[in-house]
Amino acid sequence: MAKGKKNVRGIEPQKKVLKAVLKDVIKRAQGFADPHRVANGKKFSLKDHDPSRTGDLGNEDKPRSKEALAVGVGALAELQDVLYANREWSVLLIFQAMDAAGKDGAIKHVMSGVNPQGCQVASFKAPSSEDLDHDYLWRCQAQLPQRGRIGIFNRSYYEEVLVVKVHQGILQSQRLPQQLITSRIWQQRYEDIRAFEQHLVRNGTIIRKFFLHVSRKEQKRRFLSRLDDQSKNWKFSASDMKERGYWDAYAKAYEEMIRQTATPEAPWYVVPADNKWYTRVVVAAAVVEAIASLKLAYPVVDKTKLDELAEAKLMLTQEKV
Amino acid sequence: MAKGKKNVRGIEPQKKVLKAVLKDVIKRAQGFADPHRVANGKKFSLKDHDPSRTGDLGNEDKPRSKEALAVGVGALAELQDVLYANREWSVLLIFQAMDAAGKDGAIKHVMSGVNPQGCQVASFKAPSSEDLDHDYLWRCQAQLPQRGRIGIFNRSYYEEVLVVKVHQGILQSQRLPQQLITSRIWQQRYEDIRAFEQHLVRNGTIIRKFFLHVSRKEQKRRFLSRLDDQSKNWKFSASDMKERGYWDAYAKAYEEMIRQTATPEAPWYVVPADNKWYTRVVVAAAVVEAIASLKLAYPVVDKTKLDELAEAKLMLTQEKV
Repeated sequence: MAKGKKNVRGIEPQKKVLKAVLKDVIKRAQGFADPHRVANGKKFSLKDHDPSRTGDLGNEDKPRSKEALAVGVGALAELQDVLYANREWSVLLIFQAMDAAGKDGAIKHVMSGVNPQGCQVASFKAPSSEDLDHDYLWRCQAQLPQRGRIGIFNRSYYEEVLVVKVHQGILQSQRLPQQLITSRIWQQRYEDIRAFEQHLVRNGTIIRKFFLHVSRKEQKRRFLSRLDDQSKNWKFSASDMKERGYWDAYAKAYEEMIRQTATPEAPWYVVPADNKWYTRVVVAAAVVEAIASLKLAYPVVDKTKLDELAEAKLMLTQEKV
Repeated sequence: MAKGKKNVRGIEPQKKVLKAVLKDVIKRAQGFADPHRVANGKKFSLKDHDPSRTGDLGNEDKPRSKEALAVGVGALAELQDVLYANREWSVLLIFQAMDAAGKDGAIKHVMSGVNPQGCQVASFKAPSSEDLDHDYLWRCQAQLPQRGRIGIFNRSYYEEVLVVKVHQGILQSQRLPQQLITSRIWQQRYEDIRAFEQHLVRNGTIIRKFFLHVSRKEQKRRFLSRLDDQSKNWKFSASDMKERGYWDAYAKAYEEMIRQTATPEAPWYVVPADNKWYTRVVVAAAVVEAIASLKLAYPVVDKTKLDELAEAKLMLTQEKV
């Protein structure tokens, strides 16, 4: 069964070598990711999580951490290749955060080593008229990754218990029948989201959710930098300031969301986001760990197939070209 | 609030008249549909349901029942028009049955009076390769009706606990990771389907599910007629005979499906299907009742809008064309 022995093609699958390197990376990944994992929301409190935390690393470790990120990204590319070859599992990564917490940067830096054929990003802005003509999960379901692929949701159906909860006027402006808007609606949404994710997990989707946790002070610094640096002006919009005014309401909504929807099968990672370099290391580590947990190997080629391959090789070598 | 009074446009909305006719139809519809409704599956047993039952009607009532059907179909067209005007609720009708039970005929006869712009039928055959690359709800979610519309599922995700349960080899041939195929898979599917439907109901979809219950004897008669009548030959395929061989396994799967997924919000109708004329009356009645239960009225036009309309009318009458 392709255990590092030379196969019919005479090619050493190099699996053992790969495995040794990966094994080390995966072990280190766990060290970075696990402290930030919330697999049971019951006792979750946002105040136990410091946005400026950098684990065992200090600012002097920044260069080393960049190396670690590069190694992680390389491992991720390998793991994704096996995921794609197997085409049984899919991976769904959900990103939620306050403005300027570094979602886009994290997605870019962590996922840029991955073959785009096996990776797709869906960014969810305000729902379209067609979206509102359906239940709120509908537009996200349409973007779920196929087996073998990594799907990234940049924002998601969680907005329905975040921005929609903070600004309840939005609920009224959607096309939901009035009599369905009751005091139980948020509990219903948490319940339905848990059930939806459970269904996905039971059918072969690995789910990891990331809340990039930035402090109010760091957001101020990043906003100012966007205002002062012309090349960053495009990133800023007036509504960002308006939303900043609702900081406490958002913090409460995020906290309740994590309490209600962090499960062992679909955990949240509360990623400290005041230091971008650390954020990225943690996200990369969590994704590496998630795919590694599947313990996938390249599909084993059976006897019939091996015979086919041997015959093809014979034919090719005998060809007079 | 448009209570039958003449409005600014000088038009009598005729709502009172319509209401009086509809009220009678709706009342009669309840009488036909309610005896076949299963809103709580716990004690459901298929043997309590006689496929040849025709309620209080005998064969001599067949012509009268066709009139009743025509009235029901007319009422349905009215109700659907109001549904479409409101654009808040959607209606999902799911049809499941053994071969030759009359699904296609029931859909055709009951829904043919409805404006096609407000009604869409999705027929689910064997899943495509793209379908299998996702969880089993995915392809059905994509076909959910928009607000204001009636969506009909001719077969559905319920096939995953019917044909897939009867022929478990199908499960193996799908791309589900092996370790997810456990003895708990059917319970998980019932649970996930219940949760999925609950989510839809909470977001404005009315769900009604129809099991067209035909007897083995009547299926034989209909198969023979398909074999003897050249114009019906196309309806028959060899696999129909093969599936007939699994009659008891299917009956058990249908029974368990109804036990597990009949809920007050998403009830099953176990519709006697040995007499097509009766099947259609019951289906039409259940759909009429479902939409009528929403107690919808045409959207009330507010003061601003009424002023707009009055102005438009004034402009038009003053135009010199």
